[in-house]
Amino acid sequence: LMPHAFLLHLTSPLRGEGGAHPRPPRYPGLYAHGLFFALLGKIDPGLAAAVHAAPRKPFTLAALEPSPPSGRGEVVLRITVLEDGLFAPLLGVLLREGLDGLALGDDLHRLARVVATPQGSPLAGRHTWEELAAAPPTRGLRLRFCTPTVFATSKPGRRARHTPLPDPFLIAKSLLSSWQHHSPLRFPEVEAAALQSVFELDLELTRFANLRFERAQAAKGFFPGFTGAVEVHCHSDSLEVQRALGVLQAYAFYAGVGAKTAYGLGLTTPY
Amino acid sequence: LMPHAFLLHLTSPLRGEGGAHPRPPRYPGLYAHGLFFALLGKIDPGLAAAVHAAPRKPFTLAALEPSPPSGRGEVVLRITVLEDGLFAPLLGVLLREGLDGLALGDDLHRLARVVATPQGSPLAGRHTWEELAAAPPTRGLRLRFCTPTVFATSKPGRRARHTPLPDPFLIAKSLLSSWQHHSPLRFPEVEAAALQSVFELDLELTRFANLRFERAQAAKGFFPGFTGAVEVHCHSDSLEVQRALGVLQAYAFYAGVGAKTAYGLGLTTPY
Repeated sequence: LMPHAFLLHLTSPLRGEGGAHPRPPRYPGLYAHGLFFALLGKIDPGLAAAVHAAPRKPFTLAALEPSPPSGRGEVVLRITVLEDGLFAPLLGVLLREGLDGLALGDDLHRLARVVATPQGSPLAGRHTWEELAAAPPTRGLRLRFCTPTVFATSKPGRRARHTPLPDPFLIAKSLLSSWQHHSPLRFPEVEAAALQSVFELDLELTRFANLRFERAQAAKGFFPGFTGAVEVHCHSDSLEVQRALGVLQAYAFYAGVGAKTAYGLGLTTPY
Repeated sequence: LMPHAFLLHLTSPLRGEGGAHPRPPRYPGLYAHGLFFALLGKIDPGLAAAVHAAPRKPFTLAALEPSPPSGRGEVVLRITVLEDGLFAPLLGVLLREGLDGLALGDDLHRLARVVATPQGSPLAGRHTWEELAAAPPTRGLRLRFCTPTVFATSKPGRRARHTPLPDPFLIAKSLLSSWQHHSPLRFPEVEAAALQSVFELDLELTRFANLRFERAQAAKGFFPGFTGAVEVHCHSDSLEVQRALGVLQAYAFYAGVGAKTAYGLGLTTPY
């Protein structure tokens, strides 16, 4: 029982008499989200409803460009599952339904390949919660934000606000709060509160590279976001804090960072 | 009596028997700072001491690459003066001393040209305080950070921290606080406090471009910083807030943004 990250390579079938390939999907993140829930519904309608109602989704989804680009309407979906027991049934239904075709928006795609190991792709893999909790301590975070990332930083008075910047505290808070929600090895509440205070005082952004602004669609809205690589230093000498940072950095691979990770935003890899 | 921005074009004299041009100055920001105080001292040693002791400096300084690059050890210094009465005597002493040579570090530079109008350079100009205060209202800020910019965001317990990101609140707070300190047309204190609250709640970063990380030397330390163009939107419908934003945006040209603007950091232009 552990978090998994895996890739689905989808090829689009020929369509129409001319045999033209359809264009790439228009709203890949939204379509992938719909596909994911359709699959969950085939496993168990009750499960799909429960996951849909959950305020924090136990998965992340991102639609990626195939690399190298194929120009043939192919799509790569990256899925991570954070909750125990979701991976095996999901893989089962994928393999069953994949041959007939998986709907991304209006286009049926055939499942060409499932990649679930780091040998197959650096974006795939799995760790047990124990392995994540035993990640080496670190004085800092080194994270690459691969899809547009944004923080929901709403303010009093129903002000919806977004922060499309790699603020070190917002990064660490997002990871900590996700870990506390999904991991069976969560920190005791008092310790989590202490960690958050240290993150607020002692984290400092020491470098960034290739920082780009990208407006992204997620669900029905457009969000400002950033991509790029970021290095954060922690000034605290506490070994417990450094241990926690190591855990959160490793966990980022599965949880992503920031808002709308179930719609393609915030795909993050440690480096 | 008004803020001024002007450029000094300095050519380095030939040096040694081979007639080789010296290399570009190693610490241009630091050297420019030294030159500035040497000039102030020649106007009035008491003035130099008073400006040196001031917690907020009534000037900004930046050493720029000549454009196009000359490869001949030329330096362009941009100076802005924020306090009334500093410009005329400074220009006087510059013109008197400039022919003999101005010391940047160990190298004597000859003053080739003073550019003080927007016709001569988009980085030069002057406005009266009344003109700045009458700048058109705006729903947002559009600012280009031309030299590395960083905010001092120290935390309790003597924690020196820096934020090398274009946080909209930090940008607006820096400008407001400088305006309150230097402008004879400062906002009443209650209004300034209200403006700062609105900035915290209602400013949102809506776009950035060419955002680069650049470590910069200022005085004796190295600082992380960013350059690039940034657009900030203000959600408040208050015309007073929009008026204040217009003022601060225009004022940014003279005041710069963030820490160490007297050492070359935070040179900012509205666009």
